[in-house]
Amino acid sequence: MENRTYTADAAPGDTVTVAGWVHEIRDLGGIAFLILRDTTGKIQVKFEKDEMDDNLVETGLNVQRESVISVTGDVEEEPRAPTGVEVTPESVDVISEADPELPLDPSGKVDAELPTRLDNRTLDLRKDEVKAIFEIRAEVLRSVREAFRDLNCTEINTPKIVATGTEGGTELFPITYFGQEAFMNQSPQLFKQLMVGSGLERVFEIGPIFRAEEHNTPRHLNEATSIDFESAFYDHTEAMDACEHVVQSAYEGVAENCQDELEALGLEDEFAAPEGDFPRLTYEEALDKINATGELDEPLVWGDDLSTEAEHVLGQEVGEHYFITDWPSEIKPFYIKDHDDDEEVSTGFDMMHPSMELVSGGQREHRFDHLVEGFEQQGLDPEAFEYYTKMFKYGMPPHAGWGLGGERLIMTMLGLENIREAVLFPRDRQRLSP
Amino acid sequence: MENRTYTADAAPGDTVTVAGWVHEIRDLGGIAFLILRDTTGKIQVKFEKDEMDDNLVETGLNVQRESVISVTGDVEEEPRAPTGVEVTPESVDVISEADPELPLDPSGKVDAELPTRLDNRTLDLRKDEVKAIFEIRAEVLRSVREAFRDLNCTEINTPKIVATGTEGGTELFPITYFGQEAFMNQSPQLFKQLMVGSGLERVFEIGPIFRAEEHNTPRHLNEATSIDFESAFYDHTEAMDACEHVVQSAYEGVAENCQDELEALGLEDEFAAPEGDFPRLTYEEALDKINATGELDEPLVWGDDLSTEAEHVLGQEVGEHYFITDWPSEIKPFYIKDHDDDEEVSTGFDMMHPSMELVSGGQREHRFDHLVEGFEQQGLDPEAFEYYTKMFKYGMPPHAGWGLGGERLIMTMLGLENIREAVLFPRDRQRLSP
Repeated sequence: MENRTYTADAAPGDTVTVAGWVHEIRDLGGIAFLILRDTTGKIQVKFEKDEMDDNLVETGLNVQRESVISVTGDVEEEPRAPTGVEVTPESVDVISEADPELPLDPSGKVDAELPTRLDNRTLDLRKDEVKAIFEIRAEVLRSVREAFRDLNCTEINTPKIVATGTEGGTELFPITYFGQEAFMNQSPQLFKQLMVGSGLERVFEIGPIFRAEEHNTPRHLNEATSIDFESAFYDHTEAMDACEHVVQSAYEGVAENCQDELEALGLEDEFAAPEGDFPRLTYEEALDKINATGELDEPLVWGDDLSTEAEHVLGQEVGEHYFITDWPSEIKPFYIKDHDDDEEVSTGFDMMHPSMELVSGGQREHRFDHLVEGFEQQGLDPEAFEYYTKMFKYGMPPHAGWGLGGERLIMTMLGLENIREAVLFPRDRQRLSP
Repeated sequence: MENRTYTADAAPGDTVTVAGWVHEIRDLGGIAFLILRDTTGKIQVKFEKDEMDDNLVETGLNVQRESVISVTGDVEEEPRAPTGVEVTPESVDVISEADPELPLDPSGKVDAELPTRLDNRTLDLRKDEVKAIFEIRAEVLRSVREAFRDLNCTEINTPKIVATGTEGGTELFPITYFGQEAFMNQSPQLFKQLMVGSGLERVFEIGPIFRAEEHNTPRHLNEATSIDFESAFYDHTEAMDACEHVVQSAYEGVAENCQDELEALGLEDEFAAPEGDFPRLTYEEALDKINATGELDEPLVWGDDLSTEAEHVLGQEVGEHYFITDWPSEIKPFYIKDHDDDEEVSTGFDMMHPSMELVSGGQREHRFDHLVEGFEQQGLDPEAFEYYTKMFKYGMPPHAGWGLGGERLIMTMLGLENIREAVLFPRDRQRLSP
C-alpha cells in the first residue's frame, strides 16, 4: 500500500489513507468513534450518523474488533481525541474481517495466562507492553553488535548441527543426519575458540543454542539465544572488561532508543544503565558473604556450586551486576584454564545480575597437552574432539571469552517474571508449537 | 595482553610488544628476518647475529613457523621492510610452539584442496584471502541489518525446533524432542508471517535454516543462513523494492568498508554495487528470452520450472541482477497469493544474480479460506498447521516478503566457485565435522 500513512504521521490538514486494526468502537448515539491501531499508534475515526452516508457508517461501525481496515479521509485537530487529531472518513474498506470470538483480548482489558498468550502470539503482540519487549529485544541485539564492533570483533556464524557436544553427551538433542548420529549444538564454544587461532583473532556470535535439559523453570529455555565472545591474547580480566562494555551498551542502547517502549512497560522512571565497573568478588569472598548472612541452612564450603538460593542471597547483598571470579577448578569445564600458580583455582568467572547468572566465561586452556588431559579427566574421549584439539598444535594463542544468555539479559533488564516473555515462540518440554 | 600493540599501529620511535604468528623466517647469514603476523598485518623483526645476545637470536630463529610469539623492541623506519618499519627485538617469548608438520600452509605458497582447508579452518583463515571472505561476510550482515532498519523493520528470532515443516514433510531433519517428533526448521516462513499480523507489522530475521536435501553441488548447503523479510500491507512489488534496497546496501557496505579485503581477493577494480532498479521480467518474458537463444535442447513451455541451465542462459542474456515475476501458480508454494484477476498466475517472484537464484518471495495468501484450501491442494493437513492458520481468522493484513540466501549473496558478490567457501564450517552430506 504505497499510499498508506502511518497513524503517527497523520497531521491536521492532510487527506490520508490509514490502515490497521480496529482497536475499539465507541458508539455514543448520534456520534461514534472507531479507534484504528497500527504499528505506530492509534487514531480516532469519527462517524456522525446523521451527516454521513449510511453505508459508510454501517461498514465502519459493524466491523468486528481486530479486523483489518483502511480508512481514507481528512485529518483534523480534535483536542478531545486521544492523539489530538481525528479522521473524518470518506471511505472505509474492510480488508480482513476478524472472527467475533477472539482467543485473547489484544486491548488488554481481559488478562490472559501465559500459555494462552504464547498460543496466540500474533494477538498477544498487538498489546503495547508485549510489543515493547520485542522492540527492546531488537535494540539489545543491535547495540550489543555495535559494542562488539567497538571491540574490533568479527561476527561469525558457527554450525548448529554438530557431531559432538561441547560438554559431553548429556543434554543434547539427537538428530538423524543422512544416516549419521548428530546433535543440535549446545554452544559455539569449541568453534569460537578455533577462530581465535585464525587470522580473525577476536569474534562474536549471536545465535541459537539448544539444551535438552529437563528443567522447567521460569528461567530456563530449551532453545535460547547465546551471545558469545572470544578473543586471542585476552586473559580473563580483559574478557570481563569486554563483558561489562557489552552489557552496559545494551542498557544504554535501550535507554537512548526505546523510551516509548520503556513507558509502555511502566519502566521509564526506574530504568537505568548500570554504571562504572561491576564489582569483582572472588568465589571465596562470595562464599564468605553468603555464609555471613546466615540465611542458608548449611554454610557453603570450598568446592560447592552456588544454588539458586545462594545466588539470590548474594545478589541481595551486592545489589548490582557483579562478577564471581577464581572458581574452584573442579566445578568449571575442562576448557577453562587454571591459574598458573595454583591449579586448584580456575580463571573461570560468572557475571551475575542480582537475581541470576547471566554470563559464564574465563581464560581458556590453550596448551595442547593440558587440554587433552582435561578431556580425559572429564571422562571425554579426546579422539572424538580431534577436529578441535589438533588445531592447538599449530600455534594457538592464549585466549579468553564468555557466553551471555540473551533472554536472561532481556528478562533481568525488564524485570520479566518468566524468561518465556522474552522469546516470541519459546521451546520447553511441553511447548513445541507454535 | 594489555600492553600489546597491533603490528599496524607500530610506529617508528615506539617501543612495542607485538604478538602473533611466525609467518616466515629469512636467514641471510649475518642478518635474519622474522616476519610476525597478527590480525592487522605483518611486521619485520630484524636479528643481527653478531650484535645480539645469542639466546635471543637462537630463540627467534629456531622457532617453528606458525608458532605464537611476542616480541618487545624498538620500531624503526626501514624502507626495505615490507611495511616500511622493522622491530629490533630486546626480547622474544615463544608463547605457543607450533608442530613443524602443518596440515596446510597458511602462507599460501602450497595450494590445498577445499576439504583439507575445511578440515583445518583455523590454519586456512590465517591466509589473507580467506580471512577477507569472512570479514566481508560480517560486513554484509551488518549492512543488511542497517538496511532493514532503514525500512523500519524489527529484528526477530523464530524457533529452529519446530513441530511441522514449512513445505511439508520432505527435506526435514528429524529431532528427538523429549520423546516427541520434531524437526529442524527449513525456513522462518510461517513464523515471520505470524508477526505481520501482530503489532510489529514489518520484521526481518537472519538465522540458520536446515534442509535435508540430498543435493551435493557447489551451490547447496544443508545448513545455511537465511535473510528473511516480511511486511504487513506490502504487495509483491513493494517487497521487490525492499529486496533491491537490501542487496544494494550489502554491496555498498562492502565497497565502503572492505577495501583491504577486496584487495586481498584481487577484486578491488571490478567490484561494484549494482546500480538502479533491477530489471523485472515476467516468467513469460523470461521463457521467451531463453527460448530465443536456442541454447536449450527443448524450448520451455508455461508451467516448466527453470533448470540450472535455463537460469544460466537467461543470466547471460540479462547480465545483471534481475527479477522474474508472475510465475505460474502451480509451481509456487501454497502460501503465495495468486493475482486477483488470474488465479493461474501468482504474485511470486525470484531475484536472480546472473549466475543463480538468490531470493524467493511474493505476496502471501492472507485470506483464511483460500489458505486452508491451499494446504489441502498441496496435500498437507491444515489441522497440523492450525497454530498458523487460525491466526488468519483474527485480522491478518495483506502482506509480502522474501527469503535471501546469505551464502549465495556472498558467493555471487565475490565470485566464489563453491558456496562452502562462504561458510566457516559447512554442512553437507559428507561433512558433519568440524
